[in-house]
Amino acid sequence: MKLKVKEINLSTGGPLIAVLHEKTAKQISLFPKDRVHIRKIRIKKGITCVTNISNKGIHENEIGLFQEAFHKLNVPEGTQIEMTLEEKPISIQYIKKKLNGEELNAKEIDTIVKDIVNNELSEVELAYFVSGCYTKNLTINETVALTNSIVNNGERLHFKDKIVLDKHCSGGVAGNRTTMIVVPIIASLGYKMPKTSSRAITSASGTSDTMEVLAPVTLSKDKIMQIVNKTNGCIVWGGGVDLASADDKMITVRHPLSMDPTGMLLASILAKKKAAGATHVLIDIPYGPGVKVKTKKEAKQLMKLFYKVSKRLDLKIKVVLTNGFQPIGNGIGPALEAADVLSVLQGDGPNDLREKAIFIATEMLKLVNEKNPLPKVLDAIESGRAYKKMLEIIQAQGGHKHPVIPKAKYFYNINATRDGKITFIDNQKINKIATMAGAPDEKAAGIYLRVRANREIKKGTTMFTIYSNSLQNIETIKRRLKEINPITY
Amino acid sequence: MKLKVKEINLSTGGPLIAVLHEKTAKQISLFPKDRVHIRKIRIKKGITCVTNISNKGIHENEIGLFQEAFHKLNVPEGTQIEMTLEEKPISIQYIKKKLNGEELNAKEIDTIVKDIVNNELSEVELAYFVSGCYTKNLTINETVALTNSIVNNGERLHFKDKIVLDKHCSGGVAGNRTTMIVVPIIASLGYKMPKTSSRAITSASGTSDTMEVLAPVTLSKDKIMQIVNKTNGCIVWGGGVDLASADDKMITVRHPLSMDPTGMLLASILAKKKAAGATHVLIDIPYGPGVKVKTKKEAKQLMKLFYKVSKRLDLKIKVVLTNGFQPIGNGIGPALEAADVLSVLQGDGPNDLREKAIFIATEMLKLVNEKNPLPKVLDAIESGRAYKKMLEIIQAQGGHKHPVIPKAKYFYNINATRDGKITFIDNQKINKIATMAGAPDEKAAGIYLRVRANREIKKGTTMFTIYSNSLQNIETIKRRLKEINPITY
Repeated sequence: MKLKVKEINLSTGGPLIAVLHEKTAKQISLFPKDRVHIRKIRIKKGITCVTNISNKGIHENEIGLFQEAFHKLNVPEGTQIEMTLEEKPISIQYIKKKLNGEELNAKEIDTIVKDIVNNELSEVELAYFVSGCYTKNLTINETVALTNSIVNNGERLHFKDKIVLDKHCSGGVAGNRTTMIVVPIIASLGYKMPKTSSRAITSASGTSDTMEVLAPVTLSKDKIMQIVNKTNGCIVWGGGVDLASADDKMITVRHPLSMDPTGMLLASILAKKKAAGATHVLIDIPYGPGVKVKTKKEAKQLMKLFYKVSKRLDLKIKVVLTNGFQPIGNGIGPALEAADVLSVLQGDGPNDLREKAIFIATEMLKLVNEKNPLPKVLDAIESGRAYKKMLEIIQAQGGHKHPVIPKAKYFYNINATRDGKITFIDNQKINKIATMAGAPDEKAAGIYLRVRANREIKKGTTMFTIYSNSLQNIETIKRRLKEINPITY
Repeated sequence: MKLKVKEINLSTGGPLIAVLHEKTAKQISLFPKDRVHIRKIRIKKGITCVTNISNKGIHENEIGLFQEAFHKLNVPEGTQIEMTLEEKPISIQYIKKKLNGEELNAKEIDTIVKDIVNNELSEVELAYFVSGCYTKNLTINETVALTNSIVNNGERLHFKDKIVLDKHCSGGVAGNRTTMIVVPIIASLGYKMPKTSSRAITSASGTSDTMEVLAPVTLSKDKIMQIVNKTNGCIVWGGGVDLASADDKMITVRHPLSMDPTGMLLASILAKKKAAGATHVLIDIPYGPGVKVKTKKEAKQLMKLFYKVSKRLDLKIKVVLTNGFQPIGNGIGPALEAADVLSVLQGDGPNDLREKAIFIATEMLKLVNEKNPLPKVLDAIESGRAYKKMLEIIQAQGGHKHPVIPKAKYFYNINATRDGKITFIDNQKINKIATMAGAPDEKAAGIYLRVRANREIKKGTTMFTIYSNSLQNIETIKRRLKEINPITY
C-alpha cells in the first residue's frame, strides 16, 4: 500500500510510532499496535513501526510518523512510501511463554532485551513482559541472563584497574546520604569508585538531587571517565548516561503500577553496577516499617538472592542488613543533606550519619581485602584528605571550589507538646513533610531533625524544623500536622 | 502550574492524553503515564489526563491535548489552564491486587470496568489488568461480576418479549455460516433473535463480513431495535454498536499478545448476549486440531464453565459440542458463503451446512421448550418462510430485495494428483488460502470446496477452486501450495 509521509511533531522517547487513519487501518484489517514495515519506493530495507490509529489529523492516503520514526526513515514530508503489514517479532512469543509460566533461556531473554533497546516493542508489550516477570517470578538463571543482556546491550564504562568499587542501597531511609561521604573516602584511599545514583521518585531527595546542590550531575560517559580517571571518584546521575537503557525503558512501564518484580529489581541493580565497570559492590539493605524492605526476614531473603545471582556474574559483593527504623542524619532535603555530608567530611556532623558512612566504607575495604580498614577510613576523615577529595570531585564535575549551600527563606519549629520518650520516627512521614515543604525541586526545602528514637524529651523541646521558600507550604503542613506527624512519643 | 493549551490533531480512540515537554515534567517530578488534573483558571472541576512526555512539538509553557481531551476540556487553543498532579485512581490498586493473586470482589471489578469505560486507565494499566486475569485466572465469582459490570456500564437493547434468543460459536471452522440460516428460521417461527456478530480477525470471513454482501451491517442501536421489532431478527456487526464498550477496549490490549484469559473470554461472550437483550442462548463449541478449542476435553471444561457462570447471570443456556475437524459448507469467503446461505434457505445448498443449521435451530427451540421442534424447523425451510424472512431482514437492514452476489474475475482449480481417500481438511490452511486470495476485503475472493474428509477421490478430481480478482494472488498461492496445501489424502 502506498502512502504519503506526514511528520508528527511529537516524540515518544523510544518506540517508533506510525499513525494511520482508521479507514486505512480497516482496509488492511490492521489493529492498533500491529506492526507495519515502511520503506522508500524501490528500496528494500525500511523501518518497522508500531501503529496507532486516529480518525483525526491524518488523511486516508497518509502515514503519520512521530519524530523517532520520521528521523529514522529519513525522507522529506510528502514522500510516497510503501507500507506492508509486518509479523510480530519473535520476542512476543517469548513474553507469552513467560506469562504461561515457562522459564526463558538466555537467548530468549537476550532477544527480548535487544528488541527493548531497539524500541521494537510497544509499551503494552513491555508491560506484559514485566507482568510475566512479576506474576511468574524470574529464576536465578533468568535473573543472571537478564542482567547480562542489560549490560551487553547498553553503554559501559571501562577502567583499566583490577578493582573498581561501588555501593548500592535498597532505600527508603530519609536522609542517609552515606554515598557522598563514602565515595571521597574510598577515592582518597586510592580506589576507583564511579558512582551513578538516582533522583528522588517519591522521597525528599535522591543522592543525585543532593549532589546537584554542590555540582552538576548530568554528565556524558566520556566526561565521567575523564573525571574518574583523574580523581578516582564521581557522584553523577545515572539517568544522564545510557548505561542500562533496557532497564530505563522497563522502569517506564513498571512505574504506573509500581511493579517491582524481584528478579527484575536485582537485574536492574547489578546490571547498573556492572555497566559502570564495578568489580566489587557493597549492598546495603536497611529494613524497617517505613522503608522498602519491611522485615529482617525479607531482607535476608533478598540478601541470599543477591549472593546467588552475583556469584554467576563475576561480581564480588557483600550484603549488609542495617537498621532502617528511623532517618539517618539531621537534614532531609537536598541542601540540608549536602550540609550534613560536608560537615561529616570535615570531622563533624550528625553522629549516626558519620557512623554509618564509616561502617559502609570499612566493609567496602574488607571486600577488597584491605588490611586495617577501620583506621584507614577514620584517618581519611580526620586528616582532611576525604574532604579535599570531595572538593576535587565537585570541581571536576563542574561545581564551585567553595560550594555555597542555599538556605530557605522561612522556617518553622515543631516542638514537643508534653514530656515523653520518643518511640518511633516514621521515614515515610518525614519524607512526606519534606516534599510538602518543596523538596527536592526546591533545593533548600526540607526538614532539620533534632531528635532520635529512645530520647527523652521535655515539653517545648524542638523536635524538628521545617524549611521552605513558601509560607503557604508551611501553613499547609501546619494544618495537616496531626495526620502526618512523624514522631511518636 | 499554569500552562497554555495546545491542540494536538490526533485522536486516541479512548484515553485522554496530555503531552508535556520533558523539562516541564522534570520540574514537577512527573513520570510518563502519571496523571494530571487540568482545569480552567478559577473553575474547580476539570479533566484528568494520562501524560505523555515529548521533547519536540511542545514548549515548556504548553500542554498538548489529543482530540478526546481537547474536546472534553472544551477551551480554545492558547487558553491558560491550571495543572496539578493527580493521584492514581483506586482501580490501579485493585489491578495490582489481582496481579498479586487475590480475588477481587464485585465492587472492585465494577470500579475497574467503570474506569475502563470512562477512559481513565492508560493502555499499559489495562494490559496489567488483562495480565492479572490471564496469569491468576478469574474465579466464577469474578467472571460473573465482570460480565455484569460490562453489561451495566454499556449500551443495551431492551425488548418487551419474555423470550429473546441468541447463539454463539467459539469459532475457527471455515465456512460454517449457520447463524445466517438460523436467524431467519427462528424469526420466522415468531421468536426474536437480535444477532450481533463479529468480523474476521485472522479468518477468511466473519458473519458480519458475509452478511455485508447482502446488506449493510453497521447500524445504530435505534435502527437495530426498529428492525428487530419489525422482522424479529437482524444480523449486524457488534462493533457498530456500543453494547459492551469495556470489552472492546480490553480487546485492543489483548490483541498484541493474543491474550485470551478464559474468564475474560466468557465474560465478553455472555456480556454481549445479555447486552443484546438475550434470555436464552445456544453456545456451539466446535473442537478439532485447527480450530479455537483443540480437544473434546478442553471443550467439556469450557462447557462446564459456561453453565456455572450463566446460572448466576439469569441467562438460560445450552452448550453443544460439535465436530470442528473440517470446514462446513462449500464456500469460504464472504460472497461464496452468502451464496451457500441463500441456497440452504431455498431448500438446497451444501448438506453439512444445512444439517448443522437445522441442528442448531432445533436445539434453540428445545431450549425454549417448544414442542416438536425439528418438524417446525424443517417446515420453516421447506415452506420458503425462512427464506422470505431472510429477504425481509436484508431489506430492513437496507439491502436490496433481490440481492446480487458478486463473482470473482479469476478462478483456479486444484485437482487431485493421484487416487486416494481424503483423511483431513485443515481449517487454518483453508482460511489462509482464502485470505491470500483476497478475503474478506475482496468480498468475491475465497475458496469453493468440492470434497469432504473420508471421501475417495480419483486423480484429476477437482478438490477446490480458488476465486480471486487478482491473478497475482492466484500465482502466489500456486507457488506456495505445497506448504499450505489444506487437504491430506
